[in-house]
This record gives sequence, C-alpha cells and structure tokens, in this order.
Amino acid sequence: MKQTFAIIGLGRFGGSLLKKLSDANQEVLGVDSNEQVVQDYMDIATHTAIADGQDEDALRDLDIASFDHVIVSIGHNIQANILTTILVKDLGAKHVVAKAETDVHAKVLERIGADLIVHPEAEMGRRVAHQLMTPNILNFIDLSDDYSLAEVRINNPKFAGVTLSEIDLRNKFGLNVIAVRHGNNDVVVTPGPDEKIALNDILSVIGRNKQIDAFDEKTNYQGR
Amino acid sequence: MKQTFAIIGLGRFGGSLLKKLSDANQEVLGVDSNEQVVQDYMDIATHTAIADGQDEDALRDLDIASFDHVIVSIGHNIQANILTTILVKDLGAKHVVAKAETDVHAKVLERIGADLIVHPEAEMGRRVAHQLMTPNILNFIDLSDDYSLAEVRINNPKFAGVTLSEIDLRNKFGLNVIAVRHGNNDVVVTPGPDEKIALNDILSVIGRNKQIDAFDEKTNYQGR
Ligand SMILES: Nc1ncnc2c1ncn2[C@@H]1O[C@H](COP(=O)(O)OP(=O)(O)OP(=O)(O)O)[C@@H](O)[C@H]1O
Ligand SMILES: Nc1ncnc2c1ncn2[C@@H]1O[C@H](COP(=O)(O)OP(=O)(O)OP(=O)(O)O)[C@@H](O)[C@H]1O
Ligand SMILES: [Ca+2]
Ligand SMILES: [Ca+2]
Ligand SMILES: [Ca+2]
Ligand SMILES: [Ca+2]
Repeated sequence: MKQTFAIIGLGRFGGSLLKKLSDANQEVLGVDSNEQVVQDYMDIATHTAIADGQDEDALRDLDIASFDHVIVSIGHNIQANILTTILVKDLGAKHVVAKAETDVHAKVLERIGADLIVHPEAEMGRRVAHQLMTPNILNFIDLSDDYSLAEVRINNPKFAGVTLSEIDLRNKFGLNVIAVRHGNNDVVVTPGPDEKIALNDILSVIGRNKQIDAFDEKTNYQGR
Repeated sequence: MKQTFAIIGLGRFGGSLLKKLSDANQEVLGVDSNEQVVQDYMDIATHTAIADGQDEDALRDLDIASFDHVIVSIGHNIQANILTTILVKDLGAKHVVAKAETDVHAKVLERIGADLIVHPEAEMGRRVAHQLMTPNILNFIDLSDDYSLAEVRINNPKFAGVTLSEIDLRNKFGLNVIAVRHGNNDVVVTPGPDEKIALNDILSVIGRNKQIDAFDEKTNYQGR
C-alpha cells in the first residue's frame, strides 16, 4: 500500500531511509537546508525541497500536515531538531518520527508529542556489541526478558556431519530448532530429526537466553 | 568469556558500544581526540585515553595490537577514519572493526584490511523504513531471499478471541507459528492449536516473505 513520507534532514540516516522508501515505490519528499545535499536526492525522491525545518512558513508551503509520516532526522543541531518536531506536530502532522541524540533529548521529544523516537547510533552500538561478544549469534529477536529467537552458526566440528536428532538440542539445551540454513539461499523450515548439519550451517533456534548462550559457548570452537 | 576491546572515536555509536560492552563486564579502552568526550567515559570504561587515532606513537603506547578487537568509530572525518584503520592494522591488531559513512568508504576500508565494516546509520535507515511501511511487523530476520522470521502484531479484531487452529495460518498463509507473546513477559513457545489469540498479541512466524506480507496486510486493520 502506497503511503506518503516527508523526511527533514538527509544525513546518512535520513538519506538511507529515503532510498529504501523510494526503492519500495513509496511517495517521498526529501527536505534539507543544505542545497548540495538536496541535489544528491533529486533523482531518487518523488519531490525535494531546500528548506530549514525551523521555518514554519516553509513547512506550511510544503503542506507538511498532509503526509502519512513526517521524519525529523536532523542530527547534531539538537535545537533545530526539537523546534522542527514541535512545528510539524503543531501544523497537524499525523505521525511524527524524530531521531534522538541522547536519552535526555528523547525525553524532550516525547514530551512535545513525537509519535516514534529512534536512536540509530545507540541501537546499532548495542547490536554491534552483541555481535562482537557472541560472533556466532548472527541475529536475534528478544521475545521477552527470558526468551529469544536467535540464529546460531555451527562453528564446532563436533556438531558437523551429524543429524539434528543426534545433537538433540531440545533435551540437551532446551532449544527448538525452527530452521536450518545450509547456504545463502538454501533454508529448510521446520526441519525433521534426520536433517544433517554441516560446519558453518546456521540454526534458527528459540528458547531461553541462558540456554542459547550455553549452546553458543559449546559451538564457539575457537574460543572467541 | 571476557575479551578486550579498544574503541577509537566515542561519538554516539562508539559511546553506546562502549557502554554496552562495559555493562557486560568486558575490558574496554575508550579513546577520543576530544578531552571533553573522554571525560564522559572515565567512570564507565576500564581505561580511557585522549589521543588522535592518526598518531602512530600514541597507538603503540596504548599497545593497540594486544586487544582482541579494535573498533574505529570516527565518523565525519573520513580521512582520519581511514588513516587510523591502516595504522591499527599495520601495528598488528587481530580484529579491526571500522565504521563506514558511504559505500565508497566501505570499499576503501575493505581494501586496507578492515575485518568487519559497519554502517550504523544506513542499517538503521533501512530498518526504520521497514518499520514504517509495515508497522505491525515488529522485528524480522531475513533467512534467505525468500524466507524470514517475523514478529507480527495482531491488529485486526477478526483475529482476536480465536484459537490458532481457527486462524489456521499454516493452510491459509503457509506460515508456522513459533511463539505467541500475550504481554511483555508472557511468551508461549511452540504454542498448541488451542492457544487463544487476543488483540495486540504478537505472533512469531516463519515462512515466505510474500506470505508474511499477505498475513500482515490482513491483520493490518486500520489500513496503515
Ligand atoms: N534546520 C535544518 N533544517 C533542515 N535540515 C537540516 C537542518 N539542520 C541540519 N539539517 C540537515 O540534516 C542532515 C543531518 O544532520 P547532521 O549531519 O547534523 O546529523 P547526523 O546525526 O550526523 O546525521 P547522520 O548520522 O544521519 O549522517 C544534514 O544533511 C543537515 O544538512
Ligand atoms: N582523529 C581522531 N582520533 C580520535 N577520535 C576522533 C578523531 N576524529 C574524531 N574523533 C572522535 O570520534 C567521535 C565520532 O566522530 P563524529 O562525531 O565526527 O562522527 P559521527 O559519525 O557523527 O559519530 P556518531 O554518529 O557515532 O555520533 C567524536 O567524539 C570525535 O571527537
Ligand atoms: Ca552528519
Ligand atoms: Ca553517526
Ligand atoms: Ca557526531
Ligand atoms: Ca548519525
């Protein structure tokens, strides 16, 4: 379903958001106060405009209230970020997403009515920390404080060339195997007990965080 | 297992990486050329240093080759980012992670031997685009070009108050339900056919992307 988006601030975050939305055939207006930056997005966005987000008249001329989503992705200039967010809300925008620099900044944005607040750098800082500490856990989704879904790479020869029933993750680790990835585009969903595992295969498992960590330690052959 | 990390550039990304690693009791050295910034991390990091990443002698004094991971998270100054990465590699660091600003920058980092390249802003730009286009898909993991794991929020009264066997996702959408989240910390793993679904429950499903999208459209009651 096609929706309309206005993105104010086309840095690395706002810019890649714009690209992804345009790729998905959404209608996107890109706004930045820097003419040079706007030029880079002219052929990608549906519309572009050179404007300061703090300029109420400019926002009104762009009919900012008419968009399904307005994203304020101005970064280092926190004052401009906050003022733009207030103006956009007051002009009647339906769904305002604002990028926060710090927790205090996020609190201000929440107070002035931002509908969704994102912390791109902080979120990725946490993700990369997780990735470096547990290099064989390729991806994870927290389901609750206790449970997660995780993709675990088989990095221990002990687990290679054997079947799922031989590894017996359910009894030995309390984990259910949901999928096995043998190669980039070779995925077996809800694999049977006879599914054979090779080195570097990736298992999607669900279970308690502690048990996922325990399995990761065991498959973490090089001790890294 | 405790590892040692050196982080050069304590912006929002490097800084939150440092915090997360310190929280997990890892040994972390935080380095920045800005004294003010370093001060903010003195009580959090194991060690801190005020130094320019482009200063080979400073890096040698910090014994940068001894760390399990060195992360170069300098941002806007691409030249400093590249020079620091080269120096750290040449001094013999085992595993060097570098933050890239653009695709061209990433190519340079790859060529000079960075072991892992991260694009925090671009990655989050893509994630937020996905989130805005499909607001009831809370999280997803791409398993292949065709298959994904996804968390889908039930937003359509039609799917509320009924059991999983009545919704019958397997036959109607080709999806397997792996878990049901009734509330923040109330998760049922591998739910049975009699599990009852309420409005705003979150189903973890696995299946083809097209079928996940089809289910999302159906549960996307407000048409947003
Ligand atoms: N008042 C403003 N109105 C419109 N655009 C603005 C305004 N102030 C800054 N911008 C634009 O916002 C974009 C992002 O800002 P900035 O580079 O400060 O943040 P950042 O957090 O480093 O961004 P990113 O990490 O996404 O690259 C820039 O292209 C900048 O020109
Ligand atoms: N040559 C250098 N040596 C060490 N630290 C540096 C150097 N150059 C910049 N830094 C530090 O790196 C940090 C991040 O740099 P910068 O703010 O330019 O990037 P950024 O991409 O906007 O960062 P973030 O998005 O993570 O906040 C800053 O704290 C800065 O002081
Ligand atoms: Ca910037
Ligand atoms: Ca950044
Ligand atoms: Ca910065
Ligand atoms: Ca940024």
